[in-house]
Amino acid sequence: MTGPIAIVGCGLVGRAWAIVFARAGRDVRLFDSVPGAADAARRQIARDLSSLARQRLMDRPETVLERIAVAKSLAEALDGAVYAQESVFERVDVKISLFAEIDGVIGPGTIVGSSSSGIPASAFTEGLRCRERCLVAHPVNPPYLIPVVELVPAPWTRSETVAAVRALMEQVGQVPVEMSREIEGFILNRLQAVLLMEAWRLVEEGYASAEDIDRTVSHGLGMRWAFMGPFETIDLNAPGGVADYARRLGPLYQRIAASRPEHKVWGEALIAKVEAQRRETLPAGQLARRGEWRDRRLMALAIHKREIERQEAEDALAADEATR
Amino acid sequence: MTGPIAIVGCGLVGRAWAIVFARAGRDVRLFDSVPGAADAARRQIARDLSSLARQRLMDRPETVLERIAVAKSLAEALDGAVYAQESVFERVDVKISLFAEIDGVIGPGTIVGSSSSGIPASAFTEGLRCRERCLVAHPVNPPYLIPVVELVPAPWTRSETVAAVRALMEQVGQVPVEMSREIEGFILNRLQAVLLMEAWRLVEEGYASAEDIDRTVSHGLGMRWAFMGPFETIDLNAPGGVADYARRLGPLYQRIAASRPEHKVWGEALIAKVEAQRRETLPAGQLARRGEWRDRRLMALAIHKREIERQEAEDALAADEATR
Repeated sequence: MTGPIAIVGCGLVGRAWAIVFARAGRDVRLFDSVPGAADAARRQIARDLSSLARQRLMDRPETVLERIAVAKSLAEALDGAVYAQESVFERVDVKISLFAEIDGVIGPGTIVGSSSSGIPASAFTEGLRCRERCLVAHPVNPPYLIPVVELVPAPWTRSETVAAVRALMEQVGQVPVEMSREIEGFILNRLQAVLLMEAWRLVEEGYASAEDIDRTVSHGLGMRWAFMGPFETIDLNAPGGVADYARRLGPLYQRIAASRPEHKVWGEALIAKVEAQRRETLPAGQLARRGEWRDRRLMALAIHKREIERQEAEDALAADEATR
Repeated sequence: MTGPIAIVGCGLVGRAWAIVFARAGRDVRLFDSVPGAADAARRQIARDLSSLARQRLMDRPETVLERIAVAKSLAEALDGAVYAQESVFERVDVKISLFAEIDGVIGPGTIVGSSSSGIPASAFTEGLRCRERCLVAHPVNPPYLIPVVELVPAPWTRSETVAAVRALMEQVGQVPVEMSREIEGFILNRLQAVLLMEAWRLVEEGYASAEDIDRTVSHGLGMRWAFMGPFETIDLNAPGGVADYARRLGPLYQRIAASRPEHKVWGEALIAKVEAQRRETLPAGQLARRGEWRDRRLMALAIHKREIERQEAEDALAADEATR
């Protein structure tokens, strides 16, 4: 899939997508329905690119910026675009009205991916002429540091659409994952949700503090999951692989499952309890600064992973040549 | 808590604990009820230390090894020890009989932590004279690379015991987390279990492949959790912090919870399905080699985290001095 990329909606998510595509050498057109917003977004992108370059995560930020243009209208942004990434506000009525507009001007060669993190594409594309070329392409913020993209087709999305977006995402350096059909929360938010629900319950019942639960993940579980998924983790955690693990640990998991007969989401009293604990750990006035710390840590981790994976690829190549 | 440390049970886990304590400058005595096992363990530790030194994770491996002695009996190992870390086979009858033996020879100044990953201390310490000084101190493998240690008291464990082990673990560079009381699976395995149960269900129902679920974590969720816990992650993911997040995302989480009315653990058909998918990704013959890859990646991640945290501490110190 060569050709320009349209970014529709230029908030935090749309801007980050623009960086992903332009960094990979693609021409990008920004469009936002709020007058002036796309121009402001391009200025912010210039600052973000400089910051990435300072952190060694970007070469030639000026060249990347040059590939990003501002479109005067939705039609201009979509004209001849091979792909449009929609990143507007997460509300179904907003998406419905935008996709109706898109449907009026879109050409036959353009695919549309929505950054929706929870609303399935079927909720806002059903009546469209272009619905076979629409799907959810859900990123994690910011996608230029966290590469996973969830591709979730509506019932009417063509399989060629999914395949084309998967190929495009791989081309631009993202890591696409594919769902066969829609489900609430897709993969990422479902996995996060079940872990969080258990974490909140443990705080509610006084088993541990939010801080100690956080440390259990950041100094324990999360260190494996930063480079292996949950299945590979357990596959390597028993001599006979995943089936061996599943049989050995089955009884413990059965007891854990039995100890939580049903899922339950936090109520207001529990929110207040966790909020109080978090504000003791991190006062509200420091939230923004800590967010910058998180971005620096994410950048450092992204560099670490990139360098180690490059080294692994080089080693594999050298081993290959040695056996030739 | 100064004084020697006893390692009771010298398998994979016991050996790793010996490295943790000796690396921190503590004298360590190895004991294993199988004749010759402690000597063999010490030889394996020598090899592990050299490997850690080669990876820049250990200075002066010979000095560390010199601190590790082999005890001829359980009594000799425990004599004058301030702390004993038990790491025998994870079966309640094995632990019951060992702890009865420990109770017969232990002095009044020794605390015993069990590496049990699922069996609570109340299941094997109830009748002991020393039961107030027993608790679970559950590590993640290997503890010299993954620092979290779950401290889980039995109902009769004295709070002073927990506090002393917490202080000891901090002294030797681990990250202790504390539970107020026992629950199946403690914190770490419960969080892992609920995430895994959902992951297995998604494969069972054909929503996604095990590999794509793994990629969702290793290139997504897990990148945050490698340095922030789940609470800090969401605290930084909404402008108003965790309470703001909980209210914004509550409806999505309610829908996710409703879509999984009950927990369910994998059955044989599902095990076979996941096993087949994993063996396609990683043939059984490559499991051991991939385990070595995991250890190298964990080491690299541990170095990365250590270096970045040292840099952060230096920066904080410099900022402190600048404002003085």
